[in-house]
Amino acid sequence: MFNITTASDKTLFTPGPLTTSLTVKKAMLHDAGSWHFDFNARVASIRNRILTLAGVSREGGYECVLLQGSGTFGIESVFSTSVPPTGKVLVLANGAYGERMVQMLEYAAIEHSVLRTPENQIPEASAVEAALKADADITLVAMVHCETTTGILNPVEAIATIVKKQNRAFLLDAMSSFGAIPIGLKELDIDFLVSSANKCIEGVPGFSFVLAKRESLLANEGHARSLSLDLIAQLRCFEKNGQFRYSPPTHSLLAFEQALNELDEEGGIAQRGARYEKNHQTLLEGMTSLGFKPYLPKDLQSFIITSFHYPNDSSFDFQEFYRALSDRGKIIYPGKISQVDLFRIGSIGRIFPSDSESIVDAIARVVRDLGISVSS
Amino acid sequence: MFNITTASDKTLFTPGPLTTSLTVKKAMLHDAGSWHFDFNARVASIRNRILTLAGVSREGGYECVLLQGSGTFGIESVFSTSVPPTGKVLVLANGAYGERMVQMLEYAAIEHSVLRTPENQIPEASAVEAALKADADITLVAMVHCETTTGILNPVEAIATIVKKQNRAFLLDAMSSFGAIPIGLKELDIDFLVSSANKCIEGVPGFSFVLAKRESLLANEGHARSLSLDLIAQLRCFEKNGQFRYSPPTHSLLAFEQALNELDEEGGIAQRGARYEKNHQTLLEGMTSLGFKPYLPKDLQSFIITSFHYPNDSSFDFQEFYRALSDRGKIIYPGKISQVDLFRIGSIGRIFPSDSESIVDAIARVVRDLGISVSS
Repeated sequence: MFNITTASDKTLFTPGPLTTSLTVKKAMLHDAGSWHFDFNARVASIRNRILTLAGVSREGGYECVLLQGSGTFGIESVFSTSVPPTGKVLVLANGAYGERMVQMLEYAAIEHSVLRTPENQIPEASAVEAALKADADITLVAMVHCETTTGILNPVEAIATIVKKQNRAFLLDAMSSFGAIPIGLKELDIDFLVSSANKCIEGVPGFSFVLAKRESLLANEGHARSLSLDLIAQLRCFEKNGQFRYSPPTHSLLAFEQALNELDEEGGIAQRGARYEKNHQTLLEGMTSLGFKPYLPKDLQSFIITSFHYPNDSSFDFQEFYRALSDRGKIIYPGKISQVDLFRIGSIGRIFPSDSESIVDAIARVVRDLGISVSS
Repeated sequence: MFNITTASDKTLFTPGPLTTSLTVKKAMLHDAGSWHFDFNARVASIRNRILTLAGVSREGGYECVLLQGSGTFGIESVFSTSVPPTGKVLVLANGAYGERMVQMLEYAAIEHSVLRTPENQIPEASAVEAALKADADITLVAMVHCETTTGILNPVEAIATIVKKQNRAFLLDAMSSFGAIPIGLKELDIDFLVSSANKCIEGVPGFSFVLAKRESLLANEGHARSLSLDLIAQLRCFEKNGQFRYSPPTHSLLAFEQALNELDEEGGIAQRGARYEKNHQTLLEGMTSLGFKPYLPKDLQSFIITSFHYPNDSSFDFQEFYRALSDRGKIIYPGKISQVDLFRIGSIGRIFPSDSESIVDAIARVVRDLGISVSS
C-alpha cells in the first residue's frame, strides 16, 4: 500500500494487481456514462484491440467478451456457459490455479477428471493423449499457461496440439501470460483463452476477458448455469447495443484503453515480454548471487514470477522479512504451495530492470539487518 | 463520456455508474498490494464502516461481504449461496430488476414463484401475506427497494414486517437506495441487503456488498452453486486473513474508502438523502414547468431517479433529444419499460440542485432548438 507522506507508492513485485503507470491511473479521473455512445465505442474498440493483440479478428471467427469481476470469474464463466450437461472436462493441474478450476467444476456439478503433475513439473503431452484416448466423454481440456503458484510455464503448444488432434475443445487460462508471451490462438486452434485487465496489459483490476472461437462459444448455447456468468448473453448484449449487460467498471475500462496505448507504444507483446524477461534475469542473477535458490529448474521457469526457497536458516521469519521489505517500499508475495517453503517475486507490471536491481539491493540490506544466513 | 478538450466531463443523470467527486477518483491514483497488511486493514475498515452505516455490527450478528463485479453479481451470490436445494424463493416484481432476479433463479434452477405488480404500482402487503400463507415451501422473499426501471420506491417496512411475521427470510435489493434512504436492517430483521459501490455511497464501480445476518448467511452452508459467487467462502477468507479470495478491484476500494469519508463529511445518510431529495424536487418542478409529465404518482416516486413521458409530439425522436443533451454535457437515461415511452433522469451521485437546474435549462433549450411541442 501507499503512504501519502512518502514520495511514491510501494512497488508491487506480485502477480497482480500490479504496479501500473501513472498515466494509466490518470485515465480513471473521469466518469463515463455506461450506456453512452462514446463509451460504447470505446468498449467496442477495446474488444477489437484485444482480438488484434491475439492475432485474430471477428471476421476470422473470434469474439472477445469482457466480464466484470476478477480473472476467476472469467474462467468460471467459460465452464458455466460452454460445458453442456453432457460435457466432461479434463483439468491439467500443477498448481493452485489448476486446482481452482477443479473447485469450479465441483461447485457446478460438472463432470470432470484431473491429470495432476507435481508443482515443479509440466504435464506430458503423451499423458494427456492417453487420458483423452481412454475417455471419449471428455469434451474440453483446461490448462493454466503460467501457473503463478510457482511461476512454471506450461507447454501450451504441445498440449494444444494433442488436444486438437483428439478433437476436444481447449481452454487456456492465460491470465498471467497474455500480453507478454505470444500465444498462437489461431495456429493452435485454441477455443477459449481467458485473461484479466490487471496482468500483462498493465491495466487495473475490474474485469476479465474471454477470447473465444465463435463457433465453440455458441456450440452449446442455452446451458449457462449462472446469469451473471453467462458469456453468450454478455456477447449478445455487446452485439445488440454495444453495452455491458450490467454496470461495467467504467474507470477500469478507461484505464485499460490507456494501458493498450502504452503497450503499443512499448512495441507490443514482443517488447513487453523482452522487458519482463530482463526484469526476471536481473532478479534471478541478483538473488542467486545473494545465495537464494530458485525453486524451478531454468527450463520450466517463466519470466512472469519467480519462486525462491526460504534461506536455510532456522531463524528466518517470512513475516519479518516481508515487513522489512515493505518498509523499504517493496511488496513481494508469499509462497502458495504446501510441501516447500517459498516466497515469490514478480517481474511484471510497470517495473523495469532497475526495479529488479532495487529489490535485490533491498533484500541484501534486509538479510544483513536481520542477520539472516542465506547460503546453504 | 468526456472529451479531453472540454473543460469538464459530462454530468451523469443516471442510476449509476454516477458522477463522482474528483477526490474520490484521485484516490485511485495509487496501486495497492492486494495481499498487503495495510490494504487488508483498509478492506476490514470498509466492511465495518458499511455495517455502521446500516446501523449494525459484527458483534450484533451481522456480516458485510464484498464481492467483485456489479450489483447483479451480489444479488445472484445470495441466491447461489443461501438458497438450499429444498428452498423456494418468492420474487416481488414490478420492474426489470425484479425480473432479473427471476432470471437468476431460472438459470440456477432454483424453485421460485413471482408476485407481479404493474410497473407503476407497489406490491400490497396483504397479497404477499396471502402468497406466503398459501405456499409453505417458500423460504425466502426477494424485493427491490428502489426499482430504477421507473424510480418507484417499494414499501420495505410493510413487506418486511409481513415476511418476518410469516417466518421467511427476506432479501432486499437496496442497490440504488442504500446510503441515501435509511433502512431499518435490524429493526425490520432483514436477512440480506445488497448494494453496490457506485450508487449512493458515490464510489466507482467494481464491487457489490452484501449485508447479512450471520445466522441467515450460514444457515445453509455447503450449497453454493458457483465458486466465484460463494458468499460464505468469500466471508471465510476475509475472516482468515483479511483478504479477498480472488484479485480485488484495489483502485475501486481505495475510491470507496474516500467516498465513505465524503459521506461522513456530508453528514451521513440523512444529509445525503436530503441533497438527493432537493435534486429531485428541483428537477421535477423544472420539468413540470416545461410541460413534461412524470410517469409515477407522487406518493410512489423515489428521489433516486424520475421517469418522464415522451412529449405528446409525434416528431419527438429520443435519440436526437439524447444527443442534443449529450452535446450540452448532460447524460440522461432511456426508458426501460415496454408499454410506455419514457426517459429517465437521475438525481444521485456528486450532483447538486444547481445541476438539476442546469439540466432543466438544457432541456428547455433543446426543446426550443428541436422545435418539440411538449405540452399535451
